[in-house]
Amino acid sequence: MASELKGLRVAFLTANEGIEQVELTEPWQTVRDAGGVPELVAPKGGKVQAFNHLDKADTFTVHRALTEHEGEPDYDAVVLPGGVANGDALRMSPPAVTFMRHVFEQGKPVAVICHGGWILVEADLVRGRTMTSWPSLRTDIRNAGGNWTDTEVQVCDQGPNVLISSRNPGDLPAFNRTLTEVFARQAQPA
Amino acid sequence: MASELKGLRVAFLTANEGIEQVELTEPWQTVRDAGGVPELVAPKGGKVQAFNHLDKADTFTVHRALTEHEGEPDYDAVVLPGGVANGDALRMSPPAVTFMRHVFEQGKPVAVICHGGWILVEADLVRGRTMTSWPSLRTDIRNAGGNWTDTEVQVCDQGPNVLISSRNPGDLPAFNRTLTEVFARQAQPA
Repeated sequence: MASELKGLRVAFLTANEGIEQVELTEPWQTVRDAGGVPELVAPKGGKVQAFNHLDKADTFTVHRALTEHEGEPDYDAVVLPGGVANGDALRMSPPAVTFMRHVFEQGKPVAVICHGGWILVEADLVRGRTMTSWPSLRTDIRNAGGNWTDTEVQVCDQGPNVLISSRNPGDLPAFNRTLTEVFARQAQPA
Repeated sequence: MASELKGLRVAFLTANEGIEQVELTEPWQTVRDAGGVPELVAPKGGKVQAFNHLDKADTFTVHRALTEHEGEPDYDAVVLPGGVANGDALRMSPPAVTFMRHVFEQGKPVAVICHGGWILVEADLVRGRTMTSWPSLRTDIRNAGGNWTDTEVQVCDQGPNVLISSRNPGDLPAFNRTLTEVFARQAQPA
């Protein structure tokens, strides 16, 4: 087993429904295979409902529910999967928005794919950053002050943290390879 | 039968999937009951797949498919139903974006609900306009230069046309009443 991410705690932050399943499960497996510890974080406890495009797929158990009143959870890195209903609902969760601001302020790397980027627009975290996404977010990202690119994986280190972004499930091989490389720096003593 | 909208041609513009069913069917019935002629317009011909939130509901026959090469269809008014996947997909259709710009330029009234407003953000048609929406669009509308309000129905006539907007299915009674009043002015000789 590879160990680039040995012991690294990686939050997969999603809404409680509407997640594009493969954008959750493939990066999750990538993190596990590299020795990392993925945890599913969502606004509410219980389960999240994943989808294959607009068809319901599997459910997954939430490890940590975000609440208004607890301290900010401490993770080494964050993955934001896509899914249109997921990205749309997550941005409406104030604790999720606060969590992402905290992650950026702490300089922790974030990997976002597809419709996962809307919460970064909501939190005003894309200003001056270069990123890609599902193409429907292009105008929203530009209007929020970001530089939108059309590439399978974009790495932006011009800001408080490293931001990795991809467009769609077809980009998952490049997305997973890149997030492993970037997250691995967190696992190494500086 | 009422006749406020007698003979008025009203386009219901949607993507080919993901439409919140009640936001299509209730305004549709309202237009018909008032003597108007609703037509379902979508990027592709055939059917559209409606949803009740994230559960598949009924399909509806498209009356007119938008294509890149035909002239702009001529309607007296337009309704933009919601549904997160609908609003997200419709904004990615260049003929739909062109159609909406044409409708605004012609000064035709538009009624938009829920997630229907993203195409107006995409087309840069909300700048300087006052409108409401599903709350997840609030930041996108503001970043596109619009004034976002939280009210069951907003009527904005500061622009080339009258723009009616509502937030969600609970607002449908006010939405339907208001679009009937506003569209009726199109049916009267000036």
